[in-house]
Amino acid sequence: MKIGFIGLGIMGKPMCKNLLKSGHEVICFNRSRPAVDEMAAAGATAAASIAEVASAARLIITMLPNSPEVAAVALGEGGIGDHAAPGSLLVDMSSISPLAARDICHNLNERQIRMLDAPVSGGEPKAIEGTLSVMAGGDQADFDEALPVLKAMAASVVRVGNIGDGNIAKLANQIVVAVNIAALSEALTLAAKAGADPELVFQAIRGGLAGSTVMEAKAPMMLNRDIKPGFKINLHIKDLGNAIDTGHGTGVPLPLSASVMEMMQALKVDDWGEADHSALIRYYEKLANYEVKK
Amino acid sequence: MKIGFIGLGIMGKPMCKNLLKSGHEVICFNRSRPAVDEMAAAGATAAASIAEVASAARLIITMLPNSPEVAAVALGEGGIGDHAAPGSLLVDMSSISPLAARDICHNLNERQIRMLDAPVSGGEPKAIEGTLSVMAGGDQADFDEALPVLKAMAASVVRVGNIGDGNIAKLANQIVVAVNIAALSEALTLAAKAGADPELVFQAIRGGLAGSTVMEAKAPMMLNRDIKPGFKINLHIKDLGNAIDTGHGTGVPLPLSASVMEMMQALKVDDWGEADHSALIRYYEKLANYEVKK
Repeated sequence: MKIGFIGLGIMGKPMCKNLLKSGHEVICFNRSRPAVDEMAAAGATAAASIAEVASAARLIITMLPNSPEVAAVALGEGGIGDHAAPGSLLVDMSSISPLAARDICHNLNERQIRMLDAPVSGGEPKAIEGTLSVMAGGDQADFDEALPVLKAMAASVVRVGNIGDGNIAKLANQIVVAVNIAALSEALTLAAKAGADPELVFQAIRGGLAGSTVMEAKAPMMLNRDIKPGFKINLHIKDLGNAIDTGHGTGVPLPLSASVMEMMQALKVDDWGEADHSALIRYYEKLANYEVKK
Repeated sequence: MKIGFIGLGIMGKPMCKNLLKSGHEVICFNRSRPAVDEMAAAGATAAASIAEVASAARLIITMLPNSPEVAAVALGEGGIGDHAAPGSLLVDMSSISPLAARDICHNLNERQIRMLDAPVSGGEPKAIEGTLSVMAGGDQADFDEALPVLKAMAASVVRVGNIGDGNIAKLANQIVVAVNIAALSEALTLAAKAGADPELVFQAIRGGLAGSTVMEAKAPMMLNRDIKPGFKINLHIKDLGNAIDTGHGTGVPLPLSASVMEMMQALKVDDWGEADHSALIRYYEKLANYEVKK
């Protein structure tokens, strides 16, 4: 079965390569041409338009920046909705608003095109390794159909519920991670400026109720002033924006997510947008006029 | 060596019992008499005043509600400072402001009395089991002297640094736990009201970067509407208040700790002060006018 792949960015390219490596036939498109040529050299068929991908493949993967891009590719003129055969399946692996995912799905369904939302976590390193975690939403039969294809790119593929629920799980994940990074930053800045050794405080609390994967991964980065991403502040701002849009759309106030989004926004203003999200501690350092070190 | 013990509350009583069980001779005092009688029945010497404890013991443990109570017992008229022999060692195991701990220590040192701050985490169940975690601050020699006594009450005893640093570690712990509980509440409330199954979202994200000890311990309580403490909201408000006082005293703004303290304060107004701190999700349920269930 030929698979369509649209969106060959930092994540899309390695994901597409893993599809090729696992023996799938892929036809791909990207707005800028060099990434398409690179995939063609790796064995994919190069397409000159979304229409060409949509006409050639019955299962089409999209990996795009955000909701508007997915809406344009799926529903815009010359898009998937115009050119895919009835019965085709769109697997959108972008991280977008769950409400947008439901809306796009509803529109495609009217044209007899099915859709799953299947955002990933793990970032570029796990995209390269083929060990992403996929959180999928949609009909069970559609999920079962896409599963072997998703497994070529992921270590874990879980169906969370119906359309949109994949992105809801992703947003829940991003809220917990962002706020937890801020909590850790707040705690370590207080500890250090109040005169304790932040490394010893980290060692003292990591084994108890305060312990977390964020603490294990990010406290050492904060204390070593290592800001290499990982996951970039600019992308976390995007995800928190989608969380807040979803909260507004469904009637769920998110005061801490909004606060942390604004902290990240302040860091972006200071040119830290491309740093790892653990650089959030620099927001606190600026507030406290103090530099946290081991 | 006879050990003094002042403060026989929910935590102090089982801690004192574990000292007796491990063969230590204990002289104890408490403001209300029944707890003293109970310890006397368990083998302790009952004292009628702080002065009597301070005169009889060279190592005195205090386990009191907060900074003002410790200051009064240590420095007030008829207190430890007035009656303990030069060279005595106060081991304050209360959770208090680190700045207050340093201040009390400084005053006691002028009277040739030494001090450690050694707050604990683990709550009543671990106090009963004798498996508390102690985070201690003070001179290494004083720590070494107190260590065998502390080990009769704790599974883990760590010296974090100098006087006050034990309470700094405790506050760092309490900040991370409180804010992480709020993050989890925010994420699960959004997930549920936006239409996903919060149990499946929990299962989908617990293994990744969002995973934490708080999530493992508290998400099931939130989804089962179990509010049995554990650790009470009223006590967490006290600890966050000490964190914010310390932030004010040392120049470290703590915007998220302050927000979560006010959320807990709102729950106290609604009579949830004696509930487990995971009942924080009810603050979000009230905001969202929605009840989160499995």
